[in-house]
Amino acid sequence: MIIVMKPEATTEDARQILDRIEALGLKPLHMPGSERTVLGAIGNERAIASLRLEGHPKIERVTPILAPYQLVSRELHPHDTIVKLGEHSVGGGKFTVIAGPCSVEGLEEFSKTAAVVREAGGHALRGGAFKPRTSPYSFQGLGEQGLQIMQQVGQEVGLPTVTEVLDVSDIELIADHVTAFQVGSRNMQNFRLLRALGQQQKPVLLKRGMAAKIEDLLLAAEYIVTEGNSNVILCERGITTFETATRNTLDLNAIPFIKQRSHLPVLVDPSHGTGRRELVTPMALAAAAAGADGIIVEVHHDPSNALSDGQQSLYPEQFADLMKRLAAVADAVGKELA
Amino acid sequence: MIIVMKPEATTEDARQILDRIEALGLKPLHMPGSERTVLGAIGNERAIASLRLEGHPKIERVTPILAPYQLVSRELHPHDTIVKLGEHSVGGGKFTVIAGPCSVEGLEEFSKTAAVVREAGGHALRGGAFKPRTSPYSFQGLGEQGLQIMQQVGQEVGLPTVTEVLDVSDIELIADHVTAFQVGSRNMQNFRLLRALGQQQKPVLLKRGMAAKIEDLLLAAEYIVTEGNSNVILCERGITTFETATRNTLDLNAIPFIKQRSHLPVLVDPSHGTGRRELVTPMALAAAAAGADGIIVEVHHDPSNALSDGQQSLYPEQFADLMKRLAAVADAVGKELA
Amino acid sequence: MIIVMKPEATTEDARQILDRIEALGLKPLHMPGSERTVLGAIGNERAIASLRLEGHPKIERVTPILAPYQLVSRELHPHDTIVKLGEHSVGGGKFTVIAGPCSVEGLEEFSKTAAVVREAGGHALRGGAFKPRTSPYSFQGLGEQGLQIMQQVGQEVGLPTVTEVLDVSDIELIADHVTAFQVGSRNMQNFRLLRALGQQQKPVLLKRGMAAKIEDLLLAAEYIVTEGNSNVILCERGITTFETATRNTLDLNAIPFIKQRSHLPVLVDPSHGTGRRELVTPMALAAAAAGADGIIVEVHHDPSNALSDGQQSLYPEQFADLMKRLAAVADAVGKELA
Amino acid sequence: MIIVMKPEATTEDARQILDRIEALGLKPLHMPGSERTVLGAIGNERAIASLRLEGHPKIERVTPILAPYQLVSRELHPHDTIVKLGEHSVGGGKFTVIAGPCSVEGLEEFSKTAAVVREAGGHALRGGAFKPRTSPYSFQGLGEQGLQIMQQVGQEVGLPTVTEVLDVSDIELIADHVTAFQVGSRNMQNFRLLRALGQQQKPVLLKRGMAAKIEDLLLAAEYIVTEGNSNVILCERGITTFETATRNTLDLNAIPFIKQRSHLPVLVDPSHGTGRRELVTPMALAAAAAGADGIIVEVHHDPSNALSDGQQSLYPEQFADLMKRLAAVADAVGKELA
Repeated sequence: MIIVMKPEATTEDARQILDRIEALGLKPLHMPGSERTVLGAIGNERAIASLRLEGHPKIERVTPILAPYQLVSRELHPHDTIVKLGEHSVGGGKFTVIAGPCSVEGLEEFSKTAAVVREAGGHALRGGAFKPRTSPYSFQGLGEQGLQIMQQVGQEVGLPTVTEVLDVSDIELIADHVTAFQVGSRNMQNFRLLRALGQQQKPVLLKRGMAAKIEDLLLAAEYIVTEGNSNVILCERGITTFETATRNTLDLNAIPFIKQRSHLPVLVDPSHGTGRRELVTPMALAAAAAGADGIIVEVHHDPSNALSDGQQSLYPEQFADLMKRLAAVADAVGKELA
Repeated sequence: MIIVMKPEATTEDARQILDRIEALGLKPLHMPGSERTVLGAIGNERAIASLRLEGHPKIERVTPILAPYQLVSRELHPHDTIVKLGEHSVGGGKFTVIAGPCSVEGLEEFSKTAAVVREAGGHALRGGAFKPRTSPYSFQGLGEQGLQIMQQVGQEVGLPTVTEVLDVSDIELIADHVTAFQVGSRNMQNFRLLRALGQQQKPVLLKRGMAAKIEDLLLAAEYIVTEGNSNVILCERGITTFETATRNTLDLNAIPFIKQRSHLPVLVDPSHGTGRRELVTPMALAAAAAGADGIIVEVHHDPSNALSDGQQSLYPEQFADLMKRLAAVADAVGKELA
Repeated sequence: MIIVMKPEATTEDARQILDRIEALGLKPLHMPGSERTVLGAIGNERAIASLRLEGHPKIERVTPILAPYQLVSRELHPHDTIVKLGEHSVGGGKFTVIAGPCSVEGLEEFSKTAAVVREAGGHALRGGAFKPRTSPYSFQGLGEQGLQIMQQVGQEVGLPTVTEVLDVSDIELIADHVTAFQVGSRNMQNFRLLRALGQQQKPVLLKRGMAAKIEDLLLAAEYIVTEGNSNVILCERGITTFETATRNTLDLNAIPFIKQRSHLPVLVDPSHGTGRRELVTPMALAAAAAGADGIIVEVHHDPSNALSDGQQSLYPEQFADLMKRLAAVADAVGKELA
Repeated sequence: MIIVMKPEATTEDARQILDRIEALGLKPLHMPGSERTVLGAIGNERAIASLRLEGHPKIERVTPILAPYQLVSRELHPHDTIVKLGEHSVGGGKFTVIAGPCSVEGLEEFSKTAAVVREAGGHALRGGAFKPRTSPYSFQGLGEQGLQIMQQVGQEVGLPTVTEVLDVSDIELIADHVTAFQVGSRNMQNFRLLRALGQQQKPVLLKRGMAAKIEDLLLAAEYIVTEGNSNVILCERGITTFETATRNTLDLNAIPFIKQRSHLPVLVDPSHGTGRRELVTPMALAAAAAGADGIIVEVHHDPSNALSDGQQSLYPEQFADLMKRLAAVADAVGKELA
C-alpha cells in the first residue's frame, strides 16, 4: 500500500503512521521527497485496511498495490474453472449458448421457444419467473407457476434451465425447479443475496451491474465464493453510458480483461447489452471472437407478441442463423460450440 | 404515444396497428409522411403498454408522451408532501439536517457523535447497523446491536433516527428500533424490498441509484407509494460518471428537476456524493441554494479512527460550522433551518 | 416532428404553432389528448428547424422523426462507399489493417516499424507527426520532419500513409506528404477543420469523439461530405465511461449500428480503445466479427522505448500473430484480409 | 512516482529500472514485497516521464505522486488570481455575472438584450459570432458582422464583451472587437488554439470539455499559462453522463475541488450545464453557494424567437429576478455581487 502525505504533513505525522504500520507486523517504508512524503506498507494489504488511513487529516491519498479480490483471482488459482450446468460444461474451450424468452409467459409459449432452442443446438434454457421491472405497472412474471413450467419443459427437451432470483426467501423454491440461478444486474451488489447463494451449491450466473466496474463484479463474485460455492459464471451485459443509440453499452473489453485476471468463465448477454434485435447477432459473434465462454440470449417464438423485451428478442430463424455463424467464429478462435 | 414506422412499413402494417390501438378504446392517429409514417395513440398510455409494440418488426421507435410515474407526480398531487420524522417535519419550507457516523461502531462512539449533532442543531441521527460493502473483507456493521444503540442514544438525545435496510427480512426488527428506513443506492431497484416498505407506514429515505436516471428514482418511489406508504423522502447522492476526482458526481440538477415534477421532499447526501471531506460543506450549501429540503451528512467524533468512510466524515467543529453557514444560505433562499 | 405541449397550453397556443407550421408549407397535425396536446409537422424536418420551437414557453418537448444527417445515410445512398487509400480499397468486403507507431520518432525507427507492418501483410502505415497531448510537458511530435519521414518510408515499402491533422493551416503541408488525413477524437467537432477537409479530395479517417454519440459522429462526417469530399472513413476508438480498467471503453456496438445506417466504411482502433497492449488482439478480432471494415492499430519495433503510447503498442511478433488470427476471423464472417 | 512490477518481474528487471531512475539524477527506491515488487522514483516527476516506463513489459502500473500541472496550481502560487475584464475584476471576493444571447442575431436584437443585462446589473456581455454547431444544417453565426455589433453595443452600454474563438486564424480579428475570448468545450483540447491564446494577453474564458476530467481542464489551462498569458478564467459547463433529463450534468463538485487546487477564478455556465430554462436559476444560486466566482448565463430579449438555444435562455424578467436572488446567496457566503 502506498500512502501519499499532504504537503503540510510533518515528519512526526509520518512517524506516527509508520509506527501503526509496524505494529501490525507489516514492513514500513519512508520516502521523503521534495514536494511530498510518500510512505509504503509492505505485506498483507487486507491487514492494513484495518488502519483506516483514508480518514487521516494529513494523508492525501492511499493506493493499494494488490487487487482487492483473492479467491476469484487467477494469481491464486491459475487454471480455468469449469462450471457444470446439468450435463453441460461452461468454460474450458467450450462456447455455451443459453437461450430463451425474457419472461416465461405460459406452458405453450415456453415449449415453443424451448423447441426452437433445442433444435438449433442451444445448450440451456433461460426464462424469467420473477421479473425486476423499472415500473410497478409492468408485467412482473408468473412466479412459482413460471418455475414449474421451466422444470417441466426443461425435462421434456432435455436442457438445463437458468432463472433469475430476486430475494433470499425465494432461493429454496427456485432450487427445487431449475438448474442454475441468475443474479441480475440490479442485484449484483445485493450482498445478502450473494452470501445466501454462496451457501448452496447450484451454479450462479452473476451479471455485471450497470454502474459496476469490473473490479466490483469480481468482488461480488468473491462474496459467493467466500461462502463456499465456486460455481460462479460471470456475465457482461452492458454498462450505463451517455450513448442512447443502444439501451446499454456492451463492454466487450471486459471479456479479455477478466479472462486474464480471473479463472471464472465469462458469458455475454448481447440482448440486454444492446437492447436492439438487429445488433444481437453481430455482438454475439464479437463476444465469441473476444474470447467469451458463451452467450445468454433472448429468443422468442413470436417476438412481436412478447410480454417483455420483444424489441431485443431474436426470431426463431434468426437464432438458427446465429448458431451457424457462432460455430464458424468459435472455430476461428479455437473454441468449440458443442 | 407516438409510433414511428420503419421506412419499409406498408399502409397495411399501419392499418393493423391502428386497429389494435382502437380495440383498446384509444384514439388512433395516422400521419403518413414522405419518408416515414407516424402513428399516434391518444388516451391512457398505461393501457397502450399492453400492446407491446416495441417488438414489432415494422416499428422503428415508440415514444411515450406522458411520464411513466403517477402517484409521485405533481400533476396528480400539486402540493408538497411533508413527511414526519418523529416530531420533525421534512419538506414544506424547512431545511432538515440528518447527521451521524457512517456505521454505528459502539455505544460510546455513537453517543459522542450524537451529542455533537444535537448540540449543533441537527434534526435527526443517521447511522448504519447493516452495511452494504463492496468487498466481503470490509466491516459489515454491528447488526441488531447497532439498532439497539441507535434506539437508546436517539431517546437520550431526543432525536429521531434513520438506518439502512438491506433485506425484507430485517424490516420488522429495524422498525422496532428506529424512526425511519433508508434504502441505499445499491438497493434502489430491489423491487421486493420497495414493495415491502410500501406495506408499512414508517418513513422511507430512498437514495438514487448510482446509474439511475431521475425517472428511475421516481419510478422506484412509485413502487413504495403504490403499496400505500406515501412517507417517502427522495435523496440525491451522486451518480457514476467518468470523473475520478470525486467518488461520485453529486448531481444537484436533480433537485430542481424533481421539485418541479414531484411533490415528495428531496434531500442531498454531500458525503457520499463527493467522497471527500473538504467538499462536503460547499456542496451542502449548494444543495440548500438549489432548493433541496435538507441534507443527510456524515459526522464522526473522530474521523481518523472511523471504521468506514472516514475520509468523507466531518469533524465535530466542521459540522458546527456547516450548520451556521447552512442557516445563512437557507435564509437567503427562503427556507428555515429549524 | 412531434411537438408535445405543456399541460397549461391552451387551444390558442396550439393554433398559433399550427399556423407557423402551415406557413412553412408543412402539413400540421393536431392531436388533443386528455393530459397533453400533441402536435405534428409532416414534411421536410430541416425546414421546421427554422421554427425554433424549443424555446417556446408552452412547449414541453420537440422530438424529430428523421435522422438529422442525410448525405452519409444509407437511406439516401444504399450501397457501401469504397474509399481508395492509394491502391488499397477500404470497405466493400475487404478487411483493412492500418498499422504503425503512435508517433514518428525518426527515420530509422519508422523504417523498422514499417518493415514489420509490410512483412506481416498490413495495408497502410499510420504515424503521428503533429501530436495532440493532454499535457504541455509531453512530446509533441516531429512536425514537418515527421511528414517527410512518412513520405520517404511509405514510398520505400510501397504502402499508403495516414497522419493526424490538427489545424486548417497544416492541411496543405500534410497533403503534400501523406495519402490520407486522420481527424483525432479531440477534433471531431472542430467544424472549421472538417469543412476545410471537405474542400479537398484526400481520404479522411474521422475518429469518434470521446463523448460523442454515434449520431454526433455521423453529423461530423456530414460536415465533410457536404463540402464535396465523400472519401470519409469512420473510426470507433473508445468512449469515456466510468470504467477505469481500460483507458476508454471501446464501443463495438457502434459498428453494426453505423453499418446499418450509413454507407461509409467503419474502422476500429483497439489500441486507443483499450489503452492496454494485452487487450488489443482480442478486441481487434471482436471488431472483425462485429462487421468492421478494418482496424488502425499501434505497432512499434520496440514498445518499451516508444516516445508515446508504449503501453498500448504491439510488439512485432504480436502484430504478425494478430494478422494470422484476423485472417481466420475475417474469413469466418465472409470478409477478406487482403 | 510509484512503479508496481508485474508478479513475473525478476530482481534483475527491477535493478535495470532503478539504474535508469538513478541515471536521471532521481532518488530510486526499492520495496520488494511478497506478491509484488514496488519501485519509487523521488524527485522531479516531469523528468521521470522521459523514462517512458508505461511501455515496459514487466511493469504493471505507474502512478504519479504529484499533480501533472504546475503553473495553475495553488501549491506554486497560493494567492487567488484576479482577471480584469475591462474595468471589472473576476475573482477575489467578487461574484461576476456575464450574460447575453447564445448568438448575436443582429444589432437591434443584441442591443435589446444588452440593455436588459445592463439594467439588471450584469457585469459583462456574452454573445456568439462564430458558432460551433453539431449539425452543418444549423445557424452558424454572423461572423465578423457579429463582432462589430458586439463592439458597438458593448461601448454603448459600457460593458466588456466575451465571444467564442474557434480557430487560430480568427484570433486577431476577434481581439480587435471584444474584451475577452471564450474557448468552448469542443475546443478545450485544441492545443494549437490554446498555445496561440497564450501568446497574447486578452483574458481567456476556458470551458471544460464534455468528457474532460478536472485534471484535463487544469492541464488545458496550463497550456495557455505556459505560453505567457495568465489571464485565464475556468468555466464548468456540464459534463456528459447517462442522465438525459438534463442536456448535460452540471458538475458543481468541480468548483470547490478546483478552488482548493488552483488560483484561477472559476465560473459556472448554468445554461449549457442544464439545457433547461427552468433549472438555470436554482443552479446559478447553487454555483454561488458552492464558491464559484461567477456565472455566464444565456439571456434573450425574446427566447421563443432565439436563433439558437432558446430553450435554455432566460426571459428578461427572469434574469432580473436571478440577479436579486444571487445577491442574497452571494452575501450569505461572503461574496459581493458588484
